[in-house]
Amino acid sequence: MRITKFHIPTLKEISSDTSVISHKLLLKAGMIRQLASGLYTLMPLGMRVVNKIMNIIREELNEIGDSEVLFPIMQNNDAWVRSGREKGYCGPETLRIKDRHGVDMLFSPTAEESAHLIFEMDVKSYKNLPITFYQINTKFRDEIRPRFGLMRCREFIMMDAYSFDINEDDAKKNYNNHFKAYLKIFKKMGLTAIPMQAATGEIGGDLSHEFHIIAENGESGIFYDKKLDEITENLAQFDISELQNIYAKTDDKHDEKNCPTLPENLIYKRGIEVGHIFYYKDNYTKKMDITIQGQDGKLFHPVGGCYGMGVTRIMAAAIEVNNDEKGIIWHKSISPFDVILINLSPKDEKIIQKCNEIYNLFMQNNIDTLYDDTHSSPGQKFNNADLIGIPFQIILGSKGFEKNKIEIKNRKNGQISTVLIENLLQEIIKLL
Amino acid sequence: MRITKFHIPTLKEISSDTSVISHKLLLKAGMIRQLASGLYTLMPLGMRVVNKIMNIIREELNEIGDSEVLFPIMQNNDAWVRSGREKGYCGPETLRIKDRHGVDMLFSPTAEESAHLIFEMDVKSYKNLPITFYQINTKFRDEIRPRFGLMRCREFIMMDAYSFDINEDDAKKNYNNHFKAYLKIFKKMGLTAIPMQAATGEIGGDLSHEFHIIAENGESGIFYDKKLDEITENLAQFDISELQNIYAKTDDKHDEKNCPTLPENLIYKRGIEVGHIFYYKDNYTKKMDITIQGQDGKLFHPVGGCYGMGVTRIMAAAIEVNNDEKGIIWHKSISPFDVILINLSPKDEKIIQKCNEIYNLFMQNNIDTLYDDTHSSPGQKFNNADLIGIPFQIILGSKGFEKNKIEIKNRKNGQISTVLIENLLQEIIKLL
Repeated sequence: MRITKFHIPTLKEISSDTSVISHKLLLKAGMIRQLASGLYTLMPLGMRVVNKIMNIIREELNEIGDSEVLFPIMQNNDAWVRSGREKGYCGPETLRIKDRHGVDMLFSPTAEESAHLIFEMDVKSYKNLPITFYQINTKFRDEIRPRFGLMRCREFIMMDAYSFDINEDDAKKNYNNHFKAYLKIFKKMGLTAIPMQAATGEIGGDLSHEFHIIAENGESGIFYDKKLDEITENLAQFDISELQNIYAKTDDKHDEKNCPTLPENLIYKRGIEVGHIFYYKDNYTKKMDITIQGQDGKLFHPVGGCYGMGVTRIMAAAIEVNNDEKGIIWHKSISPFDVILINLSPKDEKIIQKCNEIYNLFMQNNIDTLYDDTHSSPGQKFNNADLIGIPFQIILGSKGFEKNKIEIKNRKNGQISTVLIENLLQEIIKLL
Repeated sequence: MRITKFHIPTLKEISSDTSVISHKLLLKAGMIRQLASGLYTLMPLGMRVVNKIMNIIREELNEIGDSEVLFPIMQNNDAWVRSGREKGYCGPETLRIKDRHGVDMLFSPTAEESAHLIFEMDVKSYKNLPITFYQINTKFRDEIRPRFGLMRCREFIMMDAYSFDINEDDAKKNYNNHFKAYLKIFKKMGLTAIPMQAATGEIGGDLSHEFHIIAENGESGIFYDKKLDEITENLAQFDISELQNIYAKTDDKHDEKNCPTLPENLIYKRGIEVGHIFYYKDNYTKKMDITIQGQDGKLFHPVGGCYGMGVTRIMAAAIEVNNDEKGIIWHKSISPFDVILINLSPKDEKIIQKCNEIYNLFMQNNIDTLYDDTHSSPGQKFNNADLIGIPFQIILGSKGFEKNKIEIKNRKNGQISTVLIENLLQEIIKLL
């Protein structure tokens, strides 16, 4: 994509009151724009990041056998009466409406009821289990005081999955598959997520984990056994139940006296919650009285769990973790582009031609390239490239060109390597 | 995907009152389920079709330089006051709400106001034009009587694009690029869309085209010059302005006396509207008083247009056009899977092994395969395969296996070709 044909409205200064770095950098890098309190437009660069995050989530959930669906955003309040959550859930944060026929509806904050209604329609026998539906869809929460940009807004993209199993053993296997998929998803995105025992709250049930990304400005304080740091880095070698039993709790649940971990092994950090998973047994199938036939011919209430992951929140959390004074530093898996090609001599016909060649070559090789073909000064181009945080910058000016050389700058550590132009493609492929 | 691990709740009969074939077949094939009046869940098969449609739209719009964004679904009513559309637009079909602070909000039926607000924030000069934003997002319309399944529901997925240009000439070029992209998108999906002159209605402006897919049960009657049939088949050879001037109008706008086409060249058919594009000049920038600096240094109101396309509606229209008494017939570009592999002898270990081999081979070659590994009877498997409409069925039973042969059935014409098992992959690659 040529910058002259793309819309990246970077800003030098931002006037709005932003207290967290992700909010500030998302605005400065032109990735989001606020249209009303807590309501943001994902701009072209931001949309590309979100599309990449969604696709990583899809890959890993499809891999464990989940099926993607899309539930309606508008839900009939009757379903919430049936599940017993009509009064309790979220209170005034839930956006409610009467439709033109006077029917009470609400705008999806979560979709347990919808998933159970869909299950009830067609699933009649234990033979059809396990089933897990997931959707990636917009959710609504009318926060009284939206803040922190994408961290706490009124409309956001979430992945929510709902599983149905015959019995607790199967359900816990399913739960563990999701637990593991979550760790894989975060790892793929270059993020370390710490799983921790959590309360089940309004969702119900007796088993639940939150996933927190460690970040200085995280909203929650978390205590955890230092073993977790090693394990999440070497996921494949560890048994999930072992992992789940290692101590990790948010500060409101941490109990110093009853903590099984020795004080010297306990780490305190701050974290951003990006996922929450629940095993809620047959709470919903019982409340809604949904039964299917078991192997013994008798009707029973299947058990299940739900799995949430904040898509737009992950984008913000990734920035909280990976940034410096110059701007964002994207991990290559979720960067809006693989590389940025910077033409330092945009008036020099030979350099233009060479940049065009490189751009076309990269596109043919499926290297997603942002090409800075503007007439801005080199300084402005470097600042912009550092701000928007694409992991590799490819820099061509007339000096290098004379020697048939081109620079590759690593955004994270600032290191520059100079390569022969004809070797550029293979060098970049190695990096990606 | 193995059917035993997927959720395709096909139905023999449907009890609900369905008057159009797409509604009936979407329900029978387990692709959608209704959760409330006019509110449908996209089930796993339906979701796959919608994902394919969305990706075709993205490809073609990215190709003409449009940038994908995502506007919030909740909009502040103030923006609609500013554009002057607050009172007029859609009336009671627009879902309105007061948020917890008493602010008037509405749930996006369209997003001209949002696009203009975003434009206003960052675009200050003619140098930044042209810009076209598009989003694929859920839209709401509180129909008084939702009907025809996905054809007229209360919540649906739409692509909506908004372009900004310096002057009428540029804007019309942009309009024509979208006009052409629309025809390409439909052609890629195996659909013929007839473009026709349309009224601009509540969107405003003086140039507008609707795109209708010809279908017996189409909601609109349309009159058009038979030349259009030839032209839309051979798009590349025709000039767009020539194409736009060929007579085509919906029956409510058709005027027999002033029709420039000879009666013998006039065709009357029924159509389903799947797209609508508008050039609305500076209507919005003037009403909202949005200006940028021109080449002469003076401020001016840029001009623009908008482009809508019904994503879930296209899925329904494709079924209206391509079906038979057995079920749906998908075009390969939007089929939920490329092929369906049918194991006729699911108790025979050798056949199971061979089917597994084929399945794995196909997956390695990126052939999206649905594998019917169930224990249903051959008759049930054939009926289901015909109902869900994947274009190519690959059928293996013990008789064929003994001769090292396998059948490929074309869903559309029912023709069966028998090939050697070792040649299967290359035969399928030829077909896709």
